[in-house]
Amino acid sequence: MAKKIIVIGSGAAGMTAASTARAKDPECEITVFTEDEDVAYSPCAIPWGIEGKSEWTDIVMHTPDFYEKERGIKVYTKTTVESVDDAAKTVTAGGKAYAYDSLIIATGGKVFVPPIEGTNLKNVFIVRTVRDGKDIKEALKNAKNVVIGGAGVIGLELAVSFKNMGKDVTVIEMMNQVIPRIADKDMADNIQKHLEDMGIKFIMKAPIQSVKGTDKVESVTADGKDCPCDVMIFATGVRANLDIPKALGFDIGQLNAVIAAPTLQPYRRGRLVPDIYVAGDLVQCESAIMNGATMSQLGSTAVKQGTVAGNNAVSKDKKLFGPVASPWVSMIGDKQIAGTGLSEGLASWYGIDVAEGKAEGLTRARYYPGGKELIVKVLADRASHRIIGAQIIAGEEATGRIDWLTSAAINGVTAEDFLVRSENAYCPPTSMVKDVVISAVEDLCRNLAQ
Amino acid sequence: MAKKIIVIGSGAAGMTAASTARAKDPECEITVFTEDEDVAYSPCAIPWGIEGKSEWTDIVMHTPDFYEKERGIKVYTKTTVESVDDAAKTVTAGGKAYAYDSLIIATGGKVFVPPIEGTNLKNVFIVRTVRDGKDIKEALKNAKNVVIGGAGVIGLELAVSFKNMGKDVTVIEMMNQVIPRIADKDMADNIQKHLEDMGIKFIMKAPIQSVKGTDKVESVTADGKDCPCDVMIFATGVRANLDIPKALGFDIGQLNAVIAAPTLQPYRRGRLVPDIYVAGDLVQCESAIMNGATMSQLGSTAVKQGTVAGNNAVSKDKKLFGPVASPWVSMIGDKQIAGTGLSEGLASWYGIDVAEGKAEGLTRARYYPGGKELIVKVLADRASHRIIGAQIIAGEEATGRIDWLTSAAINGVTAEDFLVRSENAYCPPTSMVKDVVISAVEDLCRNLAQ
Repeated sequence: MAKKIIVIGSGAAGMTAASTARAKDPECEITVFTEDEDVAYSPCAIPWGIEGKSEWTDIVMHTPDFYEKERGIKVYTKTTVESVDDAAKTVTAGGKAYAYDSLIIATGGKVFVPPIEGTNLKNVFIVRTVRDGKDIKEALKNAKNVVIGGAGVIGLELAVSFKNMGKDVTVIEMMNQVIPRIADKDMADNIQKHLEDMGIKFIMKAPIQSVKGTDKVESVTADGKDCPCDVMIFATGVRANLDIPKALGFDIGQLNAVIAAPTLQPYRRGRLVPDIYVAGDLVQCESAIMNGATMSQLGSTAVKQGTVAGNNAVSKDKKLFGPVASPWVSMIGDKQIAGTGLSEGLASWYGIDVAEGKAEGLTRARYYPGGKELIVKVLADRASHRIIGAQIIAGEEATGRIDWLTSAAINGVTAEDFLVRSENAYCPPTSMVKDVVISAVEDLCRNLAQ
Repeated sequence: MAKKIIVIGSGAAGMTAASTARAKDPECEITVFTEDEDVAYSPCAIPWGIEGKSEWTDIVMHTPDFYEKERGIKVYTKTTVESVDDAAKTVTAGGKAYAYDSLIIATGGKVFVPPIEGTNLKNVFIVRTVRDGKDIKEALKNAKNVVIGGAGVIGLELAVSFKNMGKDVTVIEMMNQVIPRIADKDMADNIQKHLEDMGIKFIMKAPIQSVKGTDKVESVTADGKDCPCDVMIFATGVRANLDIPKALGFDIGQLNAVIAAPTLQPYRRGRLVPDIYVAGDLVQCESAIMNGATMSQLGSTAVKQGTVAGNNAVSKDKKLFGPVASPWVSMIGDKQIAGTGLSEGLASWYGIDVAEGKAEGLTRARYYPGGKELIVKVLADRASHRIIGAQIIAGEEATGRIDWLTSAAINGVTAEDFLVRSENAYCPPTSMVKDVVISAVEDLCRNLAQ
């Protein structure tokens, strides 16, 4: 008999899981429940949708209708799952119970909005769904002053998009640097300067105190000052959506997310839960760099987890989800910033001492026209000399370089061994003869020897 | 007393060795002998110099005068080393003997020109030195038809440069594909088609039979046909320059290059030679992929070897040169082609069976403007499932991706483990959410399972 697969959630994790299950098992019945009105898009696309660089119809890769007709996947949009009974193996949605053989929970994360006055005013937004993006775009039509709460990568990408649209943009950040947590201050300050040169204003080390207005937002208060504000965006981070996992009594980890086995099965009181899989922003990951838990709320991670969960939901040939280094990249104006593994801040969470190496150069040979800035920083732990993280700022070609350093970090390569056994491809139009990555690791080795 | 260091050869290997020795030991005396008139440039730059994309004065990074004044390195240009006496520890050049404590031999390679009639005619060139480049540029002024012998990356880069300069260009290649040896036929054919679309002509599977003319070249014969020819370029590969190593009786390897220890010291009758180091195109390398010898005549390898040789020539804190995967990249018109490790052809030299995986996609998210073609092919050996090589064709951003796959191959990662423990950084302007590299390895795993 055909297996019944239910997926809760229609983001990158959920829809990848559904499509993977279909590819692996042409016979199974697949049903997706989602509260969203759109499915199968990357929230990372929203800044570009708002700015108009990409069309909403392109961002949303496929419609529910496409999934039903082309892939035999039934998608219920705007539908809340009311309960899951994993003894009876049913999901209740819209008052109706649906049976499953395997269940995939991919309900993602919830944007954290600080508990302050005024966040329910009109023209105050979060950025999670295409609907959010469309609403923001509409509200911006009559807006002059935009305030963004949170200087993470989404906040900064939005700041550039709004500036490109002619708005007056202010970013408010609690910490003393942009891209806190995953970027080091020296790299972050370089990006902040770049944004300030574009005319974007920053209020740093200042929690948002209140959002004010009568019907709609009129000003935002931070650091004791009122900023005029026509549109306010909270880009203040994502927390795992634990509604269903908590109702089912799943084990929740130190980082307030669902603990999962390498098969992406959750646990309940220390026992592996059969026939249920989790994928996406609600999963607590294991670090590939240091022993311990970490969060990896990235689109790329969601797709990878969706692939594993979808496979394991239908197949006895199980796939595994490994520990993560969580490489990331963002396009901030015409600069790319990328990182992998531990930043200095994340390393301090593990209590470890780090050494750093840094080098600057170009993305092409010095004499070849069009070369762009390339700054590479690499971190190692002083105990083992293993490469534990890296960050790159570049005018182009940051992504492959950070994936390269990710591979080295995941494989436990020491800084010294990296110099002996790493190589970079070279031709004048695409790199320097000694890539800046190598020069940064040379600097790191000098610092480790001190 | 200050150590005396002599370097023979002024290419990437020799000048890197000299500069590394200087950085490590501010006191030592460093002398460089070279037959060349310029020093410290990358032969890979010559196509762009001829086309005028880069200036000769920029390509040659520093003058001999700069080295003497700024780095205390004495450079004798246009100077032939007549002999080396490693018992007396002297080098004789211009009839004068110079004593050394450490000697670095970095005399590079010689362009192989087939032993056929007419290669000594006027307007027949090789491409090795900036002087060659300048002479070619001068000869092209009155040329209409240019013939290039050899469809390796330098030959193809030159073909595009000449086409951009308005010439009628024909490439003659002995093998049945362009970029033979290091690229697979499917990838090579893609590039050949790209060049043919630009109007470049190819005569394949045809050795050059003769070069004809009275004073200067007038035609080239291949495949029984005469091609009209005003300028002929031999880009037919580089052989290790063994003049000095053979005179000294150093052990020469299976690939007709100097066998070197990880410290880059040569051997004589199986014994390590003290106080002499080799670096650059004359060195036979060890493969990082399979047990056995390999050649790695790349600028990036020369710089890496120069760093090790220069360090070891002055320091007791020895550095090692590791086995190589030899990643390479070339810009052919507006396409980048890159590779690493073994091609199918190189794998067959080791007698191993390969499985391949291939995927096509874009360098950016599908909905983000400006994304370019990205084709990734990954090879594994069927015995161990380890990734042994990869090739990429892309409109942009090939280099970092090939360095990433190089890292995986050098670290012995299997295709299956790559899927579990690799990650790619993602943002819509710089990558797809699942990078094409990952998709190619997924395809590889499917093929390995068959």
